[in-house]
Amino acid sequence: MTHSHPDPHGPLREMGFEVHPWRLQWSGLRVDMLARTESLFALSNGHIGLRGTFEEGEPTVLPGSYLNGFYELRGLPYAESGYGYPESGQTVVNVTNGKIIRLLVEDEPMDLRYGTTESHTRTLDFRTGTLQRETVWTSPTGRTVRIRSERLVSFTKRAIAAIHYEVEPLSEDMTLVLQSDLLANEPIPVPGNDPRLAAALDSPLVSDMADSRGYSAVLAHHTRNSELYMAAGMDHILDLPSDAETSIRADGDLARLTVSATVPRGQKLTLTKYIGYGWSARRSVPALGAQVEAALALAVDTGWDKLVAEQTAYLDDFWHDADIELDGDPELQQAVRFALFHVLQAGARGESRAIPAKGLTGPGYDGHAFWDTESFVLPMLTYTLPVAASQELRWRHATMDKAKARAAELAQKGAMFPWRSINGDECSGYWPAGTAGVHVSADIANAVARYLNATNDEQFDVECGVELLVETARLFSGIGHFDMNGEFRIDGVTGPDEYTAIVNNNVFTNLAVQQNLRDAVAAVRRQPEVARRLAVTDEETARWEACADAMCIPYDKQLDIHQQCESFTLLGQWDFEASKDRYPLLLNYPYYDLYRKQIVKQADLVFAMYTRGDAFDDNAKKRNFDYYYPLTVRDSSLSACCEAVVAAEVGYLDLAYDLMCESVFTDLHDLHANVESGLHIAALAGAWMDCVAGFGGMRDFGGNITFAPRLPKRLTYMSFRMIVRDSSIVVAIDRETATYRLLSGSSITLAHHGAEFELDGTPVTMPIPERPALVPPLAPPGCEPYSRPE
Amino acid sequence: MTHSHPDPHGPLREMGFEVHPWRLQWSGLRVDMLARTESLFALSNGHIGLRGTFEEGEPTVLPGSYLNGFYELRGLPYAESGYGYPESGQTVVNVTNGKIIRLLVEDEPMDLRYGTTESHTRTLDFRTGTLQRETVWTSPTGRTVRIRSERLVSFTKRAIAAIHYEVEPLSEDMTLVLQSDLLANEPIPVPGNDPRLAAALDSPLVSDMADSRGYSAVLAHHTRNSELYMAAGMDHILDLPSDAETSIRADGDLARLTVSATVPRGQKLTLTKYIGYGWSARRSVPALGAQVEAALALAVDTGWDKLVAEQTAYLDDFWHDADIELDGDPELQQAVRFALFHVLQAGARGESRAIPAKGLTGPGYDGHAFWDTESFVLPMLTYTLPVAASQELRWRHATMDKAKARAAELAQKGAMFPWRSINGDECSGYWPAGTAGVHVSADIANAVARYLNATNDEQFDVECGVELLVETARLFSGIGHFDMNGEFRIDGVTGPDEYTAIVNNNVFTNLAVQQNLRDAVAAVRRQPEVARRLAVTDEETARWEACADAMCIPYDKQLDIHQQCESFTLLGQWDFEASKDRYPLLLNYPYYDLYRKQIVKQADLVFAMYTRGDAFDDNAKKRNFDYYYPLTVRDSSLSACCEAVVAAEVGYLDLAYDLMCESVFTDLHDLHANVESGLHIAALAGAWMDCVAGFGGMRDFGGNITFAPRLPKRLTYMSFRMIVRDSSIVVAIDRETATYRLLSGSSITLAHHGAEFELDGTPVTMPIPERPALVPPLAPPGCEPYSRPE
Repeated sequence: MTHSHPDPHGPLREMGFEVHPWRLQWSGLRVDMLARTESLFALSNGHIGLRGTFEEGEPTVLPGSYLNGFYELRGLPYAESGYGYPESGQTVVNVTNGKIIRLLVEDEPMDLRYGTTESHTRTLDFRTGTLQRETVWTSPTGRTVRIRSERLVSFTKRAIAAIHYEVEPLSEDMTLVLQSDLLANEPIPVPGNDPRLAAALDSPLVSDMADSRGYSAVLAHHTRNSELYMAAGMDHILDLPSDAETSIRADGDLARLTVSATVPRGQKLTLTKYIGYGWSARRSVPALGAQVEAALALAVDTGWDKLVAEQTAYLDDFWHDADIELDGDPELQQAVRFALFHVLQAGARGESRAIPAKGLTGPGYDGHAFWDTESFVLPMLTYTLPVAASQELRWRHATMDKAKARAAELAQKGAMFPWRSINGDECSGYWPAGTAGVHVSADIANAVARYLNATNDEQFDVECGVELLVETARLFSGIGHFDMNGEFRIDGVTGPDEYTAIVNNNVFTNLAVQQNLRDAVAAVRRQPEVARRLAVTDEETARWEACADAMCIPYDKQLDIHQQCESFTLLGQWDFEASKDRYPLLLNYPYYDLYRKQIVKQADLVFAMYTRGDAFDDNAKKRNFDYYYPLTVRDSSLSACCEAVVAAEVGYLDLAYDLMCESVFTDLHDLHANVESGLHIAALAGAWMDCVAGFGGMRDFGGNITFAPRLPKRLTYMSFRMIVRDSSIVVAIDRETATYRLLSGSSITLAHHGAEFELDGTPVTMPIPERPALVPPLAPPGCEPYSRPE
Repeated sequence: MTHSHPDPHGPLREMGFEVHPWRLQWSGLRVDMLARTESLFALSNGHIGLRGTFEEGEPTVLPGSYLNGFYELRGLPYAESGYGYPESGQTVVNVTNGKIIRLLVEDEPMDLRYGTTESHTRTLDFRTGTLQRETVWTSPTGRTVRIRSERLVSFTKRAIAAIHYEVEPLSEDMTLVLQSDLLANEPIPVPGNDPRLAAALDSPLVSDMADSRGYSAVLAHHTRNSELYMAAGMDHILDLPSDAETSIRADGDLARLTVSATVPRGQKLTLTKYIGYGWSARRSVPALGAQVEAALALAVDTGWDKLVAEQTAYLDDFWHDADIELDGDPELQQAVRFALFHVLQAGARGESRAIPAKGLTGPGYDGHAFWDTESFVLPMLTYTLPVAASQELRWRHATMDKAKARAAELAQKGAMFPWRSINGDECSGYWPAGTAGVHVSADIANAVARYLNATNDEQFDVECGVELLVETARLFSGIGHFDMNGEFRIDGVTGPDEYTAIVNNNVFTNLAVQQNLRDAVAAVRRQPEVARRLAVTDEETARWEACADAMCIPYDKQLDIHQQCESFTLLGQWDFEASKDRYPLLLNYPYYDLYRKQIVKQADLVFAMYTRGDAFDDNAKKRNFDYYYPLTVRDSSLSACCEAVVAAEVGYLDLAYDLMCESVFTDLHDLHANVESGLHIAALAGAWMDCVAGFGGMRDFGGNITFAPRLPKRLTYMSFRMIVRDSSIVVAIDRETATYRLLSGSSITLAHHGAEFELDGTPVTMPIPERPALVPPLAPPGCEPYSRPE
């Protein structure tokens, strides 16, 4: 196993992928690529997620239909149990599949593994938000048909997905049969070898109701252990020859509309399928069924064309606020828009649900959300789709009771948010993450402050923000302590770098907590009434200030660099040469050996130099980067994008470019060889981070938006857009200058390479200061960053 | 839950236990005490272990018959798996029960829960090594019988246990039926809620053979997963009335000799049952059957009286070398001999098998051996029964291949011995112990050096000792590293204190490793040929010396004390007041909270001050003890005995006395409320440690035996015995003087309170220097040491 990231299947272009600025298009069909494309072509609105499987049902590797927040419980087993270990975990459920439209050509099932595929193209269109497909297929007995389909998961109608499906006989008149299904409890492969997980996911849905009428049907189910209720419905608009026959049935796990017709050559059989979903932990089966029927009625009433038009309009708005244009690397342009599109899909309409690490594109990580959301995904959403950022933070706030209960269970004050979860309860079976990974609570608080700075959303502040800041500050005020020298220490934690754990005074954590404490003090002063409701005392805020001011930040005076955590620079050296063919190391070395050495899985101190760049001077940033980059093996997809930002800042622009590519192409080029279980949403959000914070040099400490743009040599131009408070701006960068324009809203104070300026209706163009090219440090052997041919 | 240790069942005396210097005697019968007495009255020779259940089979709580090293495998489950986690664990198997002699009085089964027990006495005799019992019982229909039984597990015939059983009708002539059984797969309660463990232990034995002839029978079985083979056999000598009838059968899991006879009042039905066991991973079923039959033939030939005589003679020898006499506290005298007797039972005839933490007295800890053996049990055996110590270390040596493979699996050099095991393979499902608990390997090396110093056993040295020292030195030479300041660091380890883990430079570990490295250098010089065979180079030994000399020993200059591990004294304070009713803390607080605070589960630095007392000056010892004792909650039974030794050394003699009592009465008074699953052999060995090293002040650094005797105020006299090389000595201590006598062997150089002297045939009496009584530090609230009424 190595790290040197060649696409295991060869370059995308050779596999039939085409470079387009606004779409991902694949004119190929390799069965060994299917699992991967099921993830790449997944559609989602943040509430419903449908993997990119074929309508015909097979061939498929990992079918997947997901509803955000809909999970099954399973027992978590321990060889040796311990206090506070979660007894059960949550696993995302593959819900009733409404994507299936089976096709029989005469009586041969259309299956691309048989017969001859004359042509086959799938297109994920970033502007219409639809997945299009055109296939010309000749059956084993020689009958040729053209299939065109287009589908969407609606951004505007949250409960709705729809498929427009056409079949056209090309070779002769023929009898065609369509079977449009709702299918629950379809068999799925279960990862790993945990029999409890397999048991939990083997037919997780218990049928409650099946009903059909006309061209529509509804199936209702609930999960065996978690007792969540869901309904899935379908309705159809058909365009049929006069001899066509239809029938419908619904029973248990299957509802099926069958259409058969003799279709003359050159004419078409057309079916539009509307799929509706609803779920609840509380609502009754009849209520859920009615809810789905109502959603379907509205969708049918809206009609396919209008649904597509709404989808396109929604995306027009999104791209207006979020688009990034690049010149010099068309493939990267495509990949960046692919990335932004999928981050949007993950976060758009979650609406008080989590944004999972894989979005709703696959079952990876059991469908859990981690600190990825607040630390990687929300920076982009905050400045491009702030309502989605607020919705995610409202989900965190909605789990406050669970977070407080978890803190109390662990003998802590305030609120302790889970390391990984779907419903807010801790699901980590590894306590050094699940309890010691406390930075997740500070990450949430930091995201709250970032969001508030970027939006001045008073209602959110009053309803959620202050409480999130206060309860996390209470947590850390209790977790840390003043030592005999008066330093405020936070011991025994696990920072971002998962190749160390249970360390003292992790700089990333301590700086995030410092910010959290200060933001909590500010929140209490900003919203005294909320503070009174939360019973915040003056002693408390005084302590928070004192803790923040005395925060322990380990520094190695001998080496003149920061220590990732206390004593880090005294730890043993890792033998990178010996391990260079054994990445990811966690599959080949024990924690025992990794934890006690100077080896870093993912940006930790380096990430802190971005998130809390205000706490480091420029020299420290460069010295630290030079020390830590050669120790960082990037066995996590969360690393490259952070390193790229800091590499750009300290002057290694071309290294930053390679690191950015590694993050952006994580999924398109399957760099971690696991895209089949879902996309890496945080790495994709890293595309935004790298363009805006990396080459744009955007920082937002305390709500002050500053830029320090500089392009790497492979890019001749870049522009990006942002919303800050009520201002919408665009920043256009070329080799010599950056031009700032206000698209709408109030004038705003910005800074360009340290020079403050006011941006109003008049564009401002500023020169980019020259800086000598620097020679970057070397990556560990076998961990060279992803270098794409020019 | 509290720690203040009252016997949950009240004082032993009130429950019918009597104080005797040479036996444990219980004239009571409380069914709620049965599980506990099954452990207290267990018999073992280190090869076979039989819990003290009644011959009649019921009532019983936890039947237990064990063969040292005979285990079943079971899968170890993980909520989140990791590299190097053991996939399967070993669990001691309850083997074929040969203790059962059911009695029917007329046709009523004798069961103490029914009818009337007129009198009932059980006696564990420390000099005969037998468990005696006399019961007068009246059946529900009014028939009265006296039952006398005596049983032993032979120290001299390792494969043999025997029971002498008599029934005497007292009220009238009556028909008696005896059913003497071998019973495999008897149902047992399984601790905890792991379904895999329950599955593994539900009928673990698969029948291979069942045979009977005359009064004898053999059953052979093997374990389902571990594929170990065992045979159990029985033979009988009967003394019967002329009308008696007998029959025998053997089939599958049951062999039964049935005897029925009408016995006139005042006469007796007498049966002597010989039970033989054998097991092997390699030998065939017929071979094992034959082996057991041969052992039985020899036992029958020897006869009951001679077996008892051999047993008594064996114990005479043991007590000659090991006895400890105390004046001033008869209950403690009894408890100390009880302790020494059970340690002997655990270690006597293991013969290249482990000495488990519970001996063979119960299924606790799955029957695993830990570092307890080398660090607590071997100190006693080394000086009282050195052959047993050598056999245990030969077991470790026999697992060298597994230890080397484990080291290689974890990317280490040399040999890494398991944290917990039966067969030498790691069984810990908690990696901070199972990989980071590296001190176990140093403890083994230290035990090797101690044994060699105490015996000059050249053959052991050549065959095992050097290799054990060299391969552990190789491990630590590779695990540690020199930092930029030239200190040799051992990072990321778990020391003895299980309320910290994954720490840097644990003093106990580093000092044990320092000794290990130096002893390895000495071994290489002492046995150059062995060193050549092991390919030890001069560079290697030079590095070992350099590592040892540069060993990092964290010291807090501000507080002027040692740090248990790096940064320990900077960690947060534990709120002892808040937790005082919540012991043991590990059941009420998460590792996360325990690990990052200044709270100590069990003696760690304090233990190091005993084991490596040569590395601390007297002032440091006192200052350290004063600091760490108030932080130590003794949630482990391994703590009190170590703290007692150091308390005695620094001058807190009465505190030492209380701590010693806590260790010695751990099981008799059930201080940890878990004696039912087996005795705490290490805590019992602590009795020896506390008398000899505590009040006797014995130390043996580098083989130099020194004493510093001083008695606590509750003891007026103490004497103990030791074997050092070929010298057998006795040390008798009263308030003013200590008298040293050579019982046999060569003269030997000793020291008394720093004054060296030569002990030859003439006893030497030395005055005990006066020392002012010191006021000891206070224990944490709720952790006061076990203070027994005077």
